[in-house]
Parts: sequence; structure tokens; C-alpha cells
Amino acid sequence: MFKGQNLKLTLFGGSHGECVGGVMDGLPHGEAVDFDEIAAFMARRATGGALTTARKEPDAVHVDSGIRNGFTEGFPLALTIANTDTRRGDYNKLADKPRPGHADYTAYMKYGGFADMSGGGHFSARLTAPLCAFGAITKQILSRRGINVNATLVSVGEVSGDETALFAEIGRVKQLGDSVGGVISCEISGLNVGYGGPLWDGVEGRLAYAVFAVPGVKGIEFGSGFSGAKRLGSENNDPFCIENGAVKTTKNDSGGILGGITSGESIVFRSAMKPTPSIAKPQQTISLSAKENATLEIVGRHDPCIALRAVPVIEAVAAIATLDIIL
Amino acid sequence: MFKGQNLKLTLFGGSHGECVGGVMDGLPHGEAVDFDEIAAFMARRATGGALTTARKEPDAVHVDSGIRNGFTEGFPLALTIANTDTRRGDYNKLADKPRPGHADYTAYMKYGGFADMSGGGHFSARLTAPLCAFGAITKQILSRRGINVNATLVSVGEVSGDETALFAEIGRVKQLGDSVGGVISCEISGLNVGYGGPLWDGVEGRLAYAVFAVPGVKGIEFGSGFSGAKRLGSENNDPFCIENGAVKTTKNDSGGILGGITSGESIVFRSAMKPTPSIAKPQQTISLSAKENATLEIVGRHDPCIALRAVPVIEAVAAIATLDIIL
Amino acid sequence: MFKGQNLKLTLFGGSHGECVGGVMDGLPHGEAVDFDEIAAFMARRATGGALTTARKEPDAVHVDSGIRNGFTEGFPLALTIANTDTRRGDYNKLADKPRPGHADYTAYMKYGGFADMSGGGHFSARLTAPLCAFGAITKQILSRRGINVNATLVSVGEVSGDETALFAEIGRVKQLGDSVGGVISCEISGLNVGYGGPLWDGVEGRLAYAVFAVPGVKGIEFGSGFSGAKRLGSENNDPFCIENGAVKTTKNDSGGILGGITSGESIVFRSAMKPTPSIAKPQQTISLSAKENATLEIVGRHDPCIALRAVPVIEAVAAIATLDIIL
Amino acid sequence: MFKGQNLKLTLFGGSHGECVGGVMDGLPHGEAVDFDEIAAFMARRATGGALTTARKEPDAVHVDSGIRNGFTEGFPLALTIANTDTRRGDYNKLADKPRPGHADYTAYMKYGGFADMSGGGHFSARLTAPLCAFGAITKQILSRRGINVNATLVSVGEVSGDETALFAEIGRVKQLGDSVGGVISCEISGLNVGYGGPLWDGVEGRLAYAVFAVPGVKGIEFGSGFSGAKRLGSENNDPFCIENGAVKTTKNDSGGILGGITSGESIVFRSAMKPTPSIAKPQQTISLSAKENATLEIVGRHDPCIALRAVPVIEAVAAIATLDIIL
Repeated sequence: MFKGQNLKLTLFGGSHGECVGGVMDGLPHGEAVDFDEIAAFMARRATGGALTTARKEPDAVHVDSGIRNGFTEGFPLALTIANTDTRRGDYNKLADKPRPGHADYTAYMKYGGFADMSGGGHFSARLTAPLCAFGAITKQILSRRGINVNATLVSVGEVSGDETALFAEIGRVKQLGDSVGGVISCEISGLNVGYGGPLWDGVEGRLAYAVFAVPGVKGIEFGSGFSGAKRLGSENNDPFCIENGAVKTTKNDSGGILGGITSGESIVFRSAMKPTPSIAKPQQTISLSAKENATLEIVGRHDPCIALRAVPVIEAVAAIATLDIIL
Repeated sequence: MFKGQNLKLTLFGGSHGECVGGVMDGLPHGEAVDFDEIAAFMARRATGGALTTARKEPDAVHVDSGIRNGFTEGFPLALTIANTDTRRGDYNKLADKPRPGHADYTAYMKYGGFADMSGGGHFSARLTAPLCAFGAITKQILSRRGINVNATLVSVGEVSGDETALFAEIGRVKQLGDSVGGVISCEISGLNVGYGGPLWDGVEGRLAYAVFAVPGVKGIEFGSGFSGAKRLGSENNDPFCIENGAVKTTKNDSGGILGGITSGESIVFRSAMKPTPSIAKPQQTISLSAKENATLEIVGRHDPCIALRAVPVIEAVAAIATLDIIL
Repeated sequence: MFKGQNLKLTLFGGSHGECVGGVMDGLPHGEAVDFDEIAAFMARRATGGALTTARKEPDAVHVDSGIRNGFTEGFPLALTIANTDTRRGDYNKLADKPRPGHADYTAYMKYGGFADMSGGGHFSARLTAPLCAFGAITKQILSRRGINVNATLVSVGEVSGDETALFAEIGRVKQLGDSVGGVISCEISGLNVGYGGPLWDGVEGRLAYAVFAVPGVKGIEFGSGFSGAKRLGSENNDPFCIENGAVKTTKNDSGGILGGITSGESIVFRSAMKPTPSIAKPQQTISLSAKENATLEIVGRHDPCIALRAVPVIEAVAAIATLDIIL
Repeated sequence: MFKGQNLKLTLFGGSHGECVGGVMDGLPHGEAVDFDEIAAFMARRATGGALTTARKEPDAVHVDSGIRNGFTEGFPLALTIANTDTRRGDYNKLADKPRPGHADYTAYMKYGGFADMSGGGHFSARLTAPLCAFGAITKQILSRRGINVNATLVSVGEVSGDETALFAEIGRVKQLGDSVGGVISCEISGLNVGYGGPLWDGVEGRLAYAVFAVPGVKGIEFGSGFSGAKRLGSENNDPFCIENGAVKTTKNDSGGILGGITSGESIVFRSAMKPTPSIAKPQQTISLSAKENATLEIVGRHDPCIALRAVPVIEAVAAIATLDIIL
């Protein structure tokens, strides 16, 4: 459950079962919701570019309650998305052999077999569908306040550059039967100075808490981040200046946050996405029943680069966390 | 306020005023507390190596309540630390000229002058003194459960290597009247498999939320983190194996966390620390009163590398977050 | 949203719309769930005795996720209940004339018309259907731990006595075109000594917070409660004694709670339920549009005594709060 | 810890130890604080009328941080109050014989001897001193917004009437070596319509949660409360009317809350206070060490009626909860 100061979001379901969904508590009333914009955002998630898994889901968002005549009521907003393509059989044989890099083993140890892990279960990327639906709604609410959230894929493996270069690298890796990681950059523009606070009220910590929920995220940095850790203070500090009567900084290596508080510059953060754990190549694992080493070959199609499909998901969690911060 | 699931910690005070302190709610009762160990940990923070600011504080920890006869009572643990060296005068002249990289400007905009920002006020690194006191206590509680938290400085600026090399680099930067960033690595060993959960119950998000409260942290990565984002899945996945009858992984690029759940391997994360914002070199800033550009020269001694002094602080927040996770 | 320390429950929907439902976060995994018992409990709520409103709902509980093969998975448990009988028309004419004793006016002022208040909307007793479904599930979990929650109607208006007497009084009031209040007593047996704590960790406050969510509750008292406020200490104190080697009290005027902590005796509390606000008699109200006094006549059938139907609902919230306390 | 939506308050210390105190997080910045008013409120608590325990405490409030130049900073407000009169010896002999009606037994079972229960420890009414200090501060903040909180003692035992009658009854009971309960009424005036919400956002539940933290509270009712449970709907409903162009109700049996939302009328609630458990008369209890029945005689002076002294404490918690609701 996302435990924001103002917004709470519980996602439910998994890749198995008839639907996934979620309930968000704390949305203000009277906010217009455009369902075409939700659909467009869901389409961004579903396709994720031409190179992702062939699995196609329409992902129609069904609002159970909380929106009336196109406006939020101010009550919990519940929505569901049908699972139209649940091929449980594909995964059953994995049950005894935990996939390296996945939650199979840790979930088995924690939930003792009560959790249905076929297709990843509640750990599956399928949960990012309702997450994006809520992201689309919060993005609309933010947008009317002049705040925009935009994420982009900036590197794939060792390659950074334009979309063509990144797609080419993903295609190359796919041919190898392998997968590859990537980095997503996200900018939140239009925030006034003064949100957040010191220590655990800081904007960095609240955004990081939100972002690490996205499957595959293993790192986050704000502004110059890890690069800044290599610099001198005279390089890294952002000089203040007066620009058209307003206080600005001449650059934004702080990522829009000073002392945990928004500075009025855009928030900029980058997320490290690990390579998709599911790969076609044989991998070393164990048999849980036999308690011995084993080899695993995963059949079926998989995204060679989850970073590609995670772009709108990062946007969604950033939007949700940002709305929580400004409410 | 640190809002863990089980532990809550509120720190109070600042570099001004007579004391700093904090109250922790949620500690179990009957936990032995060794005050010599607290003092030793406070000494690690106070000295921070030979090259930090000359300001010396004894930092005696005074427990107001919650410990009796050397054991926790199970009630809120309150402690204070006197401010023995408050030279407010040094900072007053800065009030009109916000220091680049500091919270001066954002705090002024947020709190409208009601916050005493002399010496950094509630944003000051002074607050890390009570934070370390609570860290020392939680480290003891963890240690008796076989869990150990250890942080080390692994790089300063562009230099990584042994302590001598790092200190040399700090000394070099200090001569320039400048400051430099660094990276701190932290390992949490001894955790069983099964703590945490999917989405926002994930261990990464809960640790990140805790760690970003430390002044100067601008990034965090778990396991291979941003390096892993450059790799292939076949490189980054940690193969499972049976070792002496137990399930292990042959390496630990996941940083001890799979699907948000501890794997039984050590948790490993790295924090990017920005360079100390206060430097001797003149910097461009503004005059808030005149609303015009201005030049700022900060006099007085400052840590050339906050990363050095932050090592025990990272250890402290990691220990607090870990105890929250296992309770 | 119910914000327990361990359990969170969000209910959604209302008397309008296609369904009501809820999501509970924090349930342990591996708990058996008997759907026949859920159905039996839902039947208790739906009928509420012969004298309640004629509206009949089957209230079949549909679990969307969180239960697999009859056991909780340890993930959020989502369920929905269809609204099969939504006669919005009955209520539309009320929109301009707020019903005395209802949330019509306050909701209108708070939500500014965005909330659909037909049939009570999100304020409707309809929400108690999913509440009872979660109550039925938590009651099963408690029962396996030897803890039982039982509520009974102990008085209707000025009449207390057996069920026959209470039903007779409800029938009499119904003939008058009026409604009547009542008192529900609830006992939670089987709790060990030691749950809860001082101040805001106290069991009374946590139960009271849960119980006041039930529509119509206007008071709660534990043990001797308001009667105890009339007594001498020598009468009200519960003497301790040794009984079969165990510490007991010779009576239970504390309601099973001393210093906010369970004593090992049963928790006993009583809830004051106000009379159903909707009555057949003409009532004085206002026209919101005309801003003038007006008379309101409510047509349609209504429960003459919500206390009767609230009995299983009180049981449900008490069970949910109790499970939160012992987890 | 008081876990409001906006305010968090942790109290620490007990009747033993050098001080009691607390930390409040979430107060807005720039609120004027008048220390004379705090002192006046503390005096109300300390004296509690002529008939309370002879123990006299000056209860000077020492603010450690969070207030500067007479205004809140917007950071955690920490304060302490010295314990000047700690006669631990009086209570030590009680340790083996739990006092009926006290937390001695339940705390012993929960904390296993680690909690210092001399004088009530963390369960002692001594904690109400910092609670009142925070109440005095929040009352000032509310007062500047036109909101006033006033509590009064309305009955002692079977006696209701003016102060003289109530004091006479307390005096009579004191002569008997006994104690007596009472009822406190509290009015919160000046609140606009629209605070709160349905279900667990309701104002009743949030106030009840706050109020049950006061030692001795065993019941709470809003408006007509338990009396309303005896009435017909036609009697209990509050008719709406237009008065000078504004919407009002002709009476206030709802206690200012409809559907969990403030109606614009004053909130009115009543708290049932149990008789002081400590009485001079011999009582039946047990010996924990011998595991056998025993007789207890408590020496020393005690308040014959905690309800008298609890009046400002109820005012304090009501003020804190109200500020939390309106922020």
C-alpha cells in the first residue's frame, strides 16, 4: 500500500485471477477526469514500443466508484482492469525452480506456498496496469495546476542516445536471447518553491519511497546524484540569480530540491532499471523440492528490456507522489 | 518524523538553541542498552576523521526517559544532547544571502522567517547527533539478533581506494578552499529471508525513505544499481545454488533484495553524498532584500567532505530502518 | 479508510452505482476462509429481523483477489458486492431538502454537489455490506485463535428485555410512522492479558475509533461506563483474585481493559445507536435552493430501528479492530 | 503516540524520573504562543479545585525547541516539565500487590517488570502535565481562528448541579475514605460546516480516539448520545431552519456532527470518568509472588475524584484533536 501523507493507494490482484485493480483514498472532490486521456496513457504502457513482449492487452479501465459524471466525488476511487490473457500453464513448471532475479524464491519463503506466483502473481508487472490508471488520473489533476510529469528512457545497457539507438540495442540483445537494463529520467515541472521539509519530510525520500515500488528499480538519484558525488562543491552548487525579477538558479544540479524542499526549479531524477530477469538462455538455479542445483530454461516471450515499458509507470508513481506532496 | 511501520522517530532542535534531541516510539521493552557503546558511536560521529571541521563537541547523550536500569521500558525513549558551542554570530550575516546548495532559500520561502536558520537551524547536520544516538541504540538491539550494519566511505570525488587515498584527496581539496562529494557503502548482514514485500512494502523503498533524510544524500542504489542498468540479464541475475544444504546465490548483485523481499544475503546499498555546499571560494548568489545578484564569501571552518562524517549517520538510519522492518 | 496499526481497510461505492466493495491490506497469509460462513453472516445483516426495511438484497460476496484455494494469500484482499436494487428515483426529490439527522446537508456543503447522495451515497448503510464481509473473514481468523466477538441488541427506546419485548417495541413505533434508537452490547472473549498500551495505544480508543464508523453510533462505553461515573471507587474497582491458579477479577466493571491494556477478562462495550433519521412523519427542514424553511415528507419504507440491523455491523468492526490489535 | 492526520504527539516520562515531556510534529509555523496563557492553563490542571491531592507542582513548562521569539517555527515542538516531587518510596510496597482498577497488573504482564510503575510510571496522571501544555498551545491557535474548547464537570457520582453541589459530594466521599466518578461535558464552538467525512474519517471517531487516552475515561457520547438511543426519531432529529439567512438547526441533539461531518453547530460531547481507583479503604487483591489472595491498604493522599482534575485534560485532548481536524 502506498502510504502517502494525503493519498493512500492499494493495488490488488496479479497476473493470475480475473482482474487487477486498486483503490485510492484521499483524492479531492470535483476534479475532472478524462477517460480518453486514461485510455491513451494505458496504451503507452501496453505497447511500450515495438520490441516488448507480444502479449497484447486492451486494458480497459473500469471505474467501480468515486467518479460521477466525469468528476471525482471525493470518496475512494476504485477501478478494475480485466485479465484477458491468463495462461497460467506457461509458468506452472517454474514453481519448483525459482527464477534468478525474480521474487519466486523470496515469496515462496515468505508466503509458504499460499501466494499464487504463476506469472509473477502479485509481484507481476501486471500490477502496473492499475498503477498507470491512477497515474493517468493524477497526471490530469496535476496538469490543471500547471504541473507536468514526463519520463523518458535515456540509456539501454551501455548505449545512450536517441530512441533509434536505444531500440537498436534492445533488438540486438533480443537476438542474443538475453535482456538488458536501462535508465529512465523523469522531470516534474511547474512546482512552486516550498513543498517538502527537512529530514523525513524531504521530497527526495518521499519520491524514492514511491518509485522503488516499480518492479525492476534498483537505484534513484536526484539532480547530479552519483555524478555529483565525484565533483567539487564549486562545481556542484547551483548559483542563485535574479531572472526577470524572480529567484532562479543558473543550473539545476540539485534536481530542484534543496534541504528536502522544492526550489521552484524542475525536479529531476533518474531511475536505474535492472535487466529483465526472465531470459531465454539457460540459467543456474535450484530445485526447491530436491534441494539440489538445477538448470532452468524459460520458454515464452519476455520483454528484453523492462526499462522501456517502465517509462509510463515511473511517470505514474512520480505523479501520484507529487500529488500527495502538494495536497 | 520517521514514520516506520513499527518505529516512529521525531528529532528536534537545531544548531542554535540549548539542545538537540529526539523521541523514539515503538521500541520493544527489555532491550539492554550499553551507554559506553553509545558514547563510542557518538565519538565516531564527532571526530569523523582528522580533516573535518575543528568544531569539537563532547555530545554526551542524556536519556530523559524510556530506559531504566539499563533496559528499555517499552515506552517512548527520549534523549537530549546539549549544544555547547553555539556561535550564532558567524552565520547571521548570511541571512540575506542564501548559500548555494543549502536550504537557506527554500526554508526562507517555506517558513517565512519564523525558522531560525542560523547555523542551518533544524536543517543543520547538528540533528545527526541525536540520530546517531538512536542509531547506536538500535544497532545494539540488532546486534543481539545477529544483524550488523556497517557503512564505509568508498570514494571521494574521482578517487576510490583505501582510507589513505581518500584522506589525501580530502586534504588536497581543502587546500583549494573547496569541498568534494563522496560515496558511502553500507552492508546489513544477518537478515533472514522473508522481510519486506511487493510494491510499497519493499525493503528498498523503506530503506531509501530512511536514508534520504541524511543531509547531503542525493542518490541511493541497491546491489549493482546503476551499474546493473548497463548490464545484460545473464550477467546481472544472481544464480541460486545449494551451499551446505542452504539456498544461497553465487553472487549478490541484487543487493540482498528480490521482489522487495530480503533474500538472506546481505543487503548492500550505496549512497551518493554531494560536496559540502559551504566553501571558502566566493560564490554567486542573490540578496533577498535587494532582489539583485550578489557575491557570497563564507568564512569559518567547514567539513571539506560531508561524506566522511556521514558514514556513522548512514549506519544509524540504516539500523533504525532495519529494526523497523524486522519488528 | 480504517487506519489500524496492522490492518487498513478502504470501502468504496454507495447505494447508487453498480457495486460496493472494499480492500483490506495487512491480513496474514495462510488463513482459511469459509465462504459459507461469510454467506451466513451476510444473511444476518441482510434480514436484520422481520421488522426492517422490505428491501431484500442477496449480497453475494465476490472476492476479486487475495484468497486462493480457500486461504488468504497475504496480499490485499479485494471484494465486491453487486447493487441489485438501485431505485435512484425514490431519492432524487430529496436533493433540495436535506433530511434532518442525515448527512445530506453536511455532505452537500463539503463536496459541493460532486457527491451522489441518492440513497445516502457513500454515507449509506449500504457500505455496511462489504464491512460485514470483512467482519466475517476476520471473525473466522479470530475464532481459530480462540477469540469470539458477539454483539446483541439490549434495548430499544425505553424498553430493555428479551427479543420479543424489543421487537414489540419496534413494531409499535413502526405503526406510529416513527423510528426509535437502541443500545447494542458487544463482548470480545478469549483475549489474553497484555494487548494495548497507555495513552493512544489504549484498546478503548482503538475500538472506539473503529466503532464510530458505523452509521448511527453516537456513543460508546466500556464496562460500567457512564454508570461507573456515578459510583464510588469501592464499588467500581474490580478486585483481583486467584482462581484455579490464574489471576482473575471477581467482576468486570472495567470492561476487560485496565490502563488501556487487556486484562484477560472479556472486553465488553455498549454502543448508543440513534433512531433512524428517515421517518414517515412530516419534518421541518429547509429548501437549499430557495433558502427558506420547508416541510419534508419522506415516502418509502425504512428501518424503524437501525440498531437492529447494526448488530452484525458492530460485530464486524469490533472483529476488525480486535484482529488489528492482536496482530 | 497520538497519530492524527496532521499532528503527531509523543509524550514521554512518568511520575518517576526527572521530567515528563512531549514532542509535537506538524504544527504550522508563525503561530504566536503566549507563555502566560500556558502557565494559567497549567495552573488550572495543577490545582484542580481545593479537594484534590495535596501534592503541589509548579509545573513550569520548558520549551526545548520549536518556538522562537514567541512564534512556532514549523519544526517539532519539544517541551519538558521537571518532576520536583518524586517520592518513589510511597509506592514501592505496592509492586507485589496490584491495585484494583489500576494498570499495575496489566503493565506487569505486558512489560515483564521492565516498566517502572512506581507512582503509575508512564501510566500516571503525571503525563497529563505535558498533555495540558500542548493543549494550551493548540487552544491558542484555535482561538485565533474563532474556535473555542471548553470543558466542565457536570456531575459527580449521583449528583449533578452547580459547582458547590459537586464539591460537596466530593468532600463527602473523601470523608468516607472512598472515591467517586463523574461526567465531563465539552463544547467545541466556532467550527465551520464541512470538517470530517464518512466512515473512519468521521469527527466522532477521531475525537473519541483522542479522548480515551485520558486516564480514567471509560465512555464518550456525542449530542444526545445514550439518551438519544432511548428516543423516537421525531424527537431526536434536529430540524433545519433558516436563521438570519444562514442554515441552522433548531436544537443540537446531533452534537454538531451529521454523517461524521461538522454541521456548523457546536460539537458537544460528554466523557464518563471512573472513580479514582486508589482509595483508603482496604481492598481485595492478590500477591503476584505468592500467587494467592491478599488485602491491600493504600496509604497516602489521592484525588477523591479524578473527574475534577481531568477537566482541563479533556479540554487539552479535544483541542489537539480539533486542530488536527481543521489543519
